[in-house]
This record gives sequence, structure tokens and C-alpha cells, in this order.
Amino acid sequence: MALIQPVVLCGGSGTRLWPRSRKARPKPFLPLVDDQTLFEATLARCADPAHFALPIVVTGAAHLAHVKEQTDRVPGVSIIVEPEAKNTAAAIALAAARLPEDTVMLVCPSDHHIADTEAFATAARLAADLAAQEWLVSFGISPTTPETGFGYILRGEPLATGFRVARFVEKPDRATAETFLASGEYSWNGGIFAFRAGTLMSELARLRPDIAEAVREAVAKGRESGQEFHPDAEAFARVEGESIDYAVMEKTARAAVVPVAMGWSDIGNWQALRDAREGDALGNRVRGRVELVDCRNVLAETDGPRISVIGLEDIAIIVDGDEVLVTTMEGAQKVGKLRGASNQ
Amino acid sequence: MALIQPVVLCGGSGTRLWPRSRKARPKPFLPLVDDQTLFEATLARCADPAHFALPIVVTGAAHLAHVKEQTDRVPGVSIIVEPEAKNTAAAIALAAARLPEDTVMLVCPSDHHIADTEAFATAARLAADLAAQEWLVSFGISPTTPETGFGYILRGEPLATGFRVARFVEKPDRATAETFLASGEYSWNGGIFAFRAGTLMSELARLRPDIAEAVREAVAKGRESGQEFHPDAEAFARVEGESIDYAVMEKTARAAVVPVAMGWSDIGNWQALRDAREGDALGNRVRGRVELVDCRNVLAETDGPRISVIGLEDIAIIVDGDEVLVTTMEGAQKVGKLRGASNQ
Repeated sequence: MALIQPVVLCGGSGTRLWPRSRKARPKPFLPLVDDQTLFEATLARCADPAHFALPIVVTGAAHLAHVKEQTDRVPGVSIIVEPEAKNTAAAIALAAARLPEDTVMLVCPSDHHIADTEAFATAARLAADLAAQEWLVSFGISPTTPETGFGYILRGEPLATGFRVARFVEKPDRATAETFLASGEYSWNGGIFAFRAGTLMSELARLRPDIAEAVREAVAKGRESGQEFHPDAEAFARVEGESIDYAVMEKTARAAVVPVAMGWSDIGNWQALRDAREGDALGNRVRGRVELVDCRNVLAETDGPRISVIGLEDIAIIVDGDEVLVTTMEGAQKVGKLRGASNQ
Repeated sequence: MALIQPVVLCGGSGTRLWPRSRKARPKPFLPLVDDQTLFEATLARCADPAHFALPIVVTGAAHLAHVKEQTDRVPGVSIIVEPEAKNTAAAIALAAARLPEDTVMLVCPSDHHIADTEAFATAARLAADLAAQEWLVSFGISPTTPETGFGYILRGEPLATGFRVARFVEKPDRATAETFLASGEYSWNGGIFAFRAGTLMSELARLRPDIAEAVREAVAKGRESGQEFHPDAEAFARVEGESIDYAVMEKTARAAVVPVAMGWSDIGNWQALRDAREGDALGNRVRGRVELVDCRNVLAETDGPRISVIGLEDIAIIVDGDEVLVTTMEGAQKVGKLRGASNQ
């Protein structure tokens, strides 16, 4: 089988891991779970030359310096520099429009963590097989909790190496999420996709001709500069920002899903990060100069000052420069709304 | 009646308010409860010239700079500089040995907070009256909780403006403390005393002649230097370090107590400090750049970096220089044992 083309999406700038993640130093470029940054780990998962072509990174000018710094030892990486952020449909189409029609792309967000890289590699090959047969394939993350923050995918009839998608479901309420989890037939939509480039572009042209056309023009009028490709800004400005889910996946008749349990996390807040990290015997996770007394399941990290903690459980303490965050795990979802996080 | 002679003791260096209180910047000299430092507030309580003479401060060389800085607007203060720390019996005797026998001293620790200064002033006059009649008088702090960290005083038969002491009781266990509280006959021993100087010295000479004699020699051989008096170091080195409670109060037949409810706190840890401070409608107390979300009864203070807190209750967060402390109120008593606090 032909090599799979990794397309790594490197956009957005979450605020939920503030103050470690900041506007000028966003989440993908931080070594959150281990020594690698999430972006570096994403590239590493697609680095086996027996299965993967050299990676394409799609990013914005704001993140370009980070991308270049963290790919300086990745030979042959090419970078598509979006003139502005236009959501995932446009970002993926920029890559697809420049590839031979028969190339199978594996679209990977760069702000997720995957613990089981072998399971990922296996799923990538199964998804690529389906994509080569003109299926538009989502990775279906096996749910482990009744999460209400993700979209779900209900599997339909079986295919050779996966399933047809019976239905995409918007973020459910808690009770619905619990029935989804219990049924065993739903997966989380983790934003990882496999597409044959030609199939993706023709479905996009059919469903959202405006996006497809503007992207094709932005590519046609773009300019190459070393490892970078700069799409035409004027043409790209006409693109309507839309997610690939809304633009294509939820409308196409050729959506498929490959269920996979791979220790996936979107590291969506400090609780998720705590859970993704290895803990000690008491469940504590520390980085930097930290002393814990009578603590359990505490995440504490500092870039300088010492942190001393007594008697706490299930909280995160983050010291970063001129900011100190202390939150319960339950409160972690409100971090983005703090003054410090929103007025960066 | 003659003026009362304030004798302010300024020694020791607790670690339980670390990291705000440090070896080089001890508790009495910090503005912990309000804008005044505890030391300044102690002097202010005894500043009314209608009742009080100019104050004498007894301190060590390590604290002298702080004392001078914080008394630079207190006219006529005199300072006895202990050659080394020898506990309260020696510190009080140093002052007593230099005073006319008939002078009534009011001995005040400088690391306590007293909310009701009028109640203090009234008690001071009642205690001074008893002291003038050669009673050795303890302030008996009306207990508000079954505290196990303080000594207790059981009142005996009534005197003109107070009571004989029936018994001093060591720090009790919880159950005993509860019976003390319920009985209404016990007070906390807060370390505030009124003595006629001559009575104190003669009781000390009777009960601990070694201490009395060494102190008298240290005073006789001492030297004056402006507002400072330096007792002779060699003589003072012979003094055995002993508390005034053990050395005199628990043994004399002339111990008296003046019960007083005056919003007293020894600010013994971060919980005590939280309770001594005015809170907002949710019981939170903050100083510096702090944002609290869904918090109650949180004490948060910072000397620089912003603190952001979500979802916590009854904890203290202290940011001071290169130290960040996060503790439950229950854990506050363990602060002194933290590495940061003990390895200063």
C-alpha cells in the first residue's frame, strides 16, 4: 500500500490550560504530558517511513516560529501557512488541493495526547484502507466516561476495516452521554480523519463549492518559499470558516468510522492533563520544586518558585511567571474565563 | 494612680506564618491583620499618656533594626537589647531590674492581635491595680473555642479587680478543653502580665535566685547607648532560659488573673490570621492581585504575581517572593514543618 500522508493541523489557541498555555505560547508547543510537546508527539506518531510520507503542517503565521523551531530536526517537513484562521474545512482542503488525488491523508490535530501509539498506528492503517476506497473516515475514540464536551459518532453497518457512520451526534447532555457510553456503539469524535485527497475535494466541491473553489484559487495563486507554502491571502479571505464536520462529514453519504481505544485525551483542561500524566503512589503529579504534605491527586507545577501544599486533594496548582492558578478539578473548566486567561 | 510602664517583648521567630514571616522578617514586624504591624499595634495600645509611661522594648540584636525602624515615630522609646534569647523570665527581669520597685509594668508580647483595644485598656488598669497591691497578674483571655494549643488559668476566689489564680493548667487535650470552655471558669494564658517591678524581682529572687542574680549582674554591668541599653553579655549568658510561667507564675502564692474578652488572637497560624481579618460577604480575605471564583473563606495574598482561584473553600494561598504556599486551614498547623519553613 502507498504511504499515508500526515497532515498536522496546528491552529487555535485554547485558554483552558492558562497560565501555562498563553496566546504567545499555545498548547501544542508545550511539553504538557511528558518531555515532548503535543506537536512533537503528533509528528512522532506519523514518523515511521514504512507507513508515512514526510509530514505537512498547516498552521498560521502566529505559530510559524514555534512550528519551525519544533521541526528543525524533522527532515522534509513542509508547512502550509494559512493567511488567516478559517477553521478545519479550509485547513484540510489547503493540503488536499495540493496533493495527488490518490494520496491518502491522515489529518491529525496537534493538541491531543495519545498514550497507545501502536493502537494509533494500527487504526491509521485501517482508516487509510477505507479512505483509499473513497470513504471519508473518522477515528472513533472509544469513550471511557460519559463526556458531555465532545461530539459522538454512532457506528452503522460494518465495512472491511471499520463501520459506516450511522449518525454524528452533537455534544449530548449527561443522561444521553451515559446511554451512549453504556450502549458500546458510540465513539467520541476526536477530529482525526483519513481522506483520499481527491475524494475529500470532490465531496467538498459538491457540498460546499464556495469553500472548495476559494481554496483552489488560494492554492493556485499561492507561492512556495523553501519549505513553506503561502496560499493567496485575497482568495483565502473569501473562504467561510467552517469545521470539516459541519462542511462535509455530517452531510456526506460516505462517512466511515474506525473505532480505536488508544488512551486518547484532548488535554482539554488541567483535570484532563492531570489524568494523562503518570502519578505517584498517592496520585500526585508534580513538576519543578514542589513539596506536598497530606496530598492526593494533586497536580502541581512551577517554572520557578517553590510550591508547598498541605492537606489538599484533587486540585491543580500552576505557577507560571507572574501568574499563580489554584483550582479544583471540577473548577478546571472555568479557567478560560478567568481575567488572566481572557485578557492576554 | 501612677502611670503603667509598658514592657513590650519582641523576641522569638515563629515559622507558622511562613512564607510571609521569615527568619529575617519575623511575625511582629509584619502588617498581618491590618496596615499596622503587630509590634506597632502593641505600642499603639499602650500609647495613651494619661495611663501609660513611655514604652520599654526588650528585643534581640537580630530584631533591633526592625524595632528601630518601626519606632522611629515613637518618642522616648527605650530598648533593652538582649545579648541572646533567654526566654521570658529573663527578658521581663531585665526590664524589672532597671525600674523603680514601685513601678507597675505591663508586659505585652508583640506578636498578638487584639481587636477590642478598649477592653484591653480597661483590663490593663484593673490588672495594674492588683499589681500595685503586689499581685502577680495574668490577663485571662476569655476562651472562644476549646483550644488545645494554649495553657489555661482556673480562677479562684475574687479579689478587688480580678481573681486569685486557683491553678495554671498545661495545654489540655480536646475533651478537657471542652469542659474548660463549658465551665466558664477558665481563661487562656495569653502571656500578658502586670507586675510591680519590686514584687516580680523579689518573687524571682525567692523562686529562681540564679536567674534573678545573673540578670541583676547583667544590668549592673550593662551599658547605655542612646536609647539602647545593652546588658552585660557574659553575665547574661549564665541565665537559664525559662518562661515567666514556669519560673514564677505557677509557683508563686500571689498569682492573680483579670479575665478579659478583647478579641484576642495569637495569630498562631494562617487560619488564626484568616479569622482575625475582616472578610467579604463570602468570608474571603485577599491582599494584592487576586481573582476568586466560587470561593468561600479563602485567605489569598500575594506580594506580586496574580493569584487566580476557582472552587475552593477554607484554604490559604500565600505568594511571597520565591515561595508559594497552599494549605487547608486544618493543615495550617503543619506549615512550620515544611522544608521551606524549616530550612531558612
